[in-house]
Amino acid sequence: MRSYGVIGTGALGGYYGGLLAKSGLDVHFLARSDANAIRTYGLRVDSIDGDFVVAPAQAYASVDRMPKCDVMIVALKSTQNHLLGELVTPLMKADSIVLVLENGLHVEAAAEAIVGRGRVMGGCCFLCSNKVGPGHIRHLDYGHVAMGAYLGEDGNSTPVATDDQLAIQRDFLDAGIRVELVDDLQYSRWKKLMWNIPFNGLSVIMNAPTNALMSSPPSRQLAIDLMRETQASAKACGVQIEDREIDQMVAYTDEMVPYDSSMRLDYRAGRSMEIDAIVGRPLLEAIRRGYIPKKIQMLYQQLCFLQK
Amino acid sequence: MRSYGVIGTGALGGYYGGLLAKSGLDVHFLARSDANAIRTYGLRVDSIDGDFVVAPAQAYASVDRMPKCDVMIVALKSTQNHLLGELVTPLMKADSIVLVLENGLHVEAAAEAIVGRGRVMGGCCFLCSNKVGPGHIRHLDYGHVAMGAYLGEDGNSTPVATDDQLAIQRDFLDAGIRVELVDDLQYSRWKKLMWNIPFNGLSVIMNAPTNALMSSPPSRQLAIDLMRETQASAKACGVQIEDREIDQMVAYTDEMVPYDSSMRLDYRAGRSMEIDAIVGRPLLEAIRRGYIPKKIQMLYQQLCFLQK
Repeated sequence: MRSYGVIGTGALGGYYGGLLAKSGLDVHFLARSDANAIRTYGLRVDSIDGDFVVAPAQAYASVDRMPKCDVMIVALKSTQNHLLGELVTPLMKADSIVLVLENGLHVEAAAEAIVGRGRVMGGCCFLCSNKVGPGHIRHLDYGHVAMGAYLGEDGNSTPVATDDQLAIQRDFLDAGIRVELVDDLQYSRWKKLMWNIPFNGLSVIMNAPTNALMSSPPSRQLAIDLMRETQASAKACGVQIEDREIDQMVAYTDEMVPYDSSMRLDYRAGRSMEIDAIVGRPLLEAIRRGYIPKKIQMLYQQLCFLQK
Repeated sequence: MRSYGVIGTGALGGYYGGLLAKSGLDVHFLARSDANAIRTYGLRVDSIDGDFVVAPAQAYASVDRMPKCDVMIVALKSTQNHLLGELVTPLMKADSIVLVLENGLHVEAAAEAIVGRGRVMGGCCFLCSNKVGPGHIRHLDYGHVAMGAYLGEDGNSTPVATDDQLAIQRDFLDAGIRVELVDDLQYSRWKKLMWNIPFNGLSVIMNAPTNALMSSPPSRQLAIDLMRETQASAKACGVQIEDREIDQMVAYTDEMVPYDSSMRLDYRAGRSMEIDAIVGRPLLEAIRRGYIPKKIQMLYQQLCFLQK
């Protein structure tokens, strides 16, 4: 039985880690200031699929007393990735695998710098959940994960062994998490960026939820323009996304309930926004390859101004 | 002696019209709801160049009792140009000239449609003034006007006769207004747009005064990018603006006191913004000629969303 370490027990780490623990796996939660509450009351997940409590739960305020684990799930904000050396290094066995469940492009690079090539996976999570209190997660919708081997910034790394990928997938499936293994993680990353770039970015700059952006023709067109520039940026990076994916994403967003993007929640709460992982890095990768997505660049300039 | 009709006795019309009246010219003010106050107390101008009151002042609540005038000064917001037919037509003599002192590109077209070709002039005003009460104007800084003949949307109209242009310039100079006659009005218009597009637009979208936009590197660069796109749009329209004009405009803005653009004041007061004259029309002219200024287009999309 593989042991799991969850680095960051927030809306995402608490939800997936909670499901893994509930299924009987040995899961250890790094939970900082929430560790005491979780050890005392358990980890509570109120979910549309059924509420549950993991109790007792193995929670830790720091990595000092945490055991080494077979799989480290990184569920921080990408803005905290500079802490990974301190948080992940002490918990690694010789063959531990790191699974980075963060938004953005090349968010796995920080983990790879620590544990080396061929041992890092990434996952795109389609999850709508919030942390509503210490050790208390509310799962509102979705939950699907597309995960795959991270092949490095140059795309040339040896991937994590297929058996390990399948074993982790099996653990997730057994825990009731809808997970698919993808051959091309970068394709999944870029496809998710095609939503995240317009809607995280514009929701902050225009101070509006997704439904307001979609129902006004100029902002709707701007969102589509940003999707097209993301598609073209992906193409410059060797990732082909079909036009119909844009149509589907528009239709999907039209059907969504009014939604505050994570970046807008961060902005309104005065937290750091994931500007670099979600907008800056994709912009940089496109520019490096000779394509300048002007509207994404302007979005980035505007977000940086607001973050200051 | 030429008689002047001032259509719109606000921050701009009240200031220039007040100076013309003070110099002894026969000036008639269309002042809507302020007409009574102006007739009773006079037109007050508190100016950095010396305060004065025009009393008695010839003010009118509607055009019905206003006499025909030799020169009609249009000092409305361009968003009100659809009212010109009703406001200007009854006041025109056979040889009256219309001088449009508004921001934006081809704001003279509405006047030309009413009075015909060869009788319309335009002016770019570099004026910092506010209306602070009924018939009460506060002049804070500047006041220079660059005026010239409007040659139509195709640039092919016969210009207003040179003698008439010189005579109007003389009246302005005698009133203490710094005015230059320009051969190429479109050059002056585009050059002013090079400031108005970035700073009117971004001050609304980023909710910030000019000094905040200039002191943060990403928004400063975005302002310069928008200036360059305005320069390129002008070029597509056959108007050459030198690079050093951008450098000068940046230096000039750096030296300005913190300033709320007119568009930001309009937005905050819940009034219509001059989006079309200042951003939409220049964008359209560039696109018609095959150049798409992407960041100006995005600015336009964002402003239209906010105006809704």
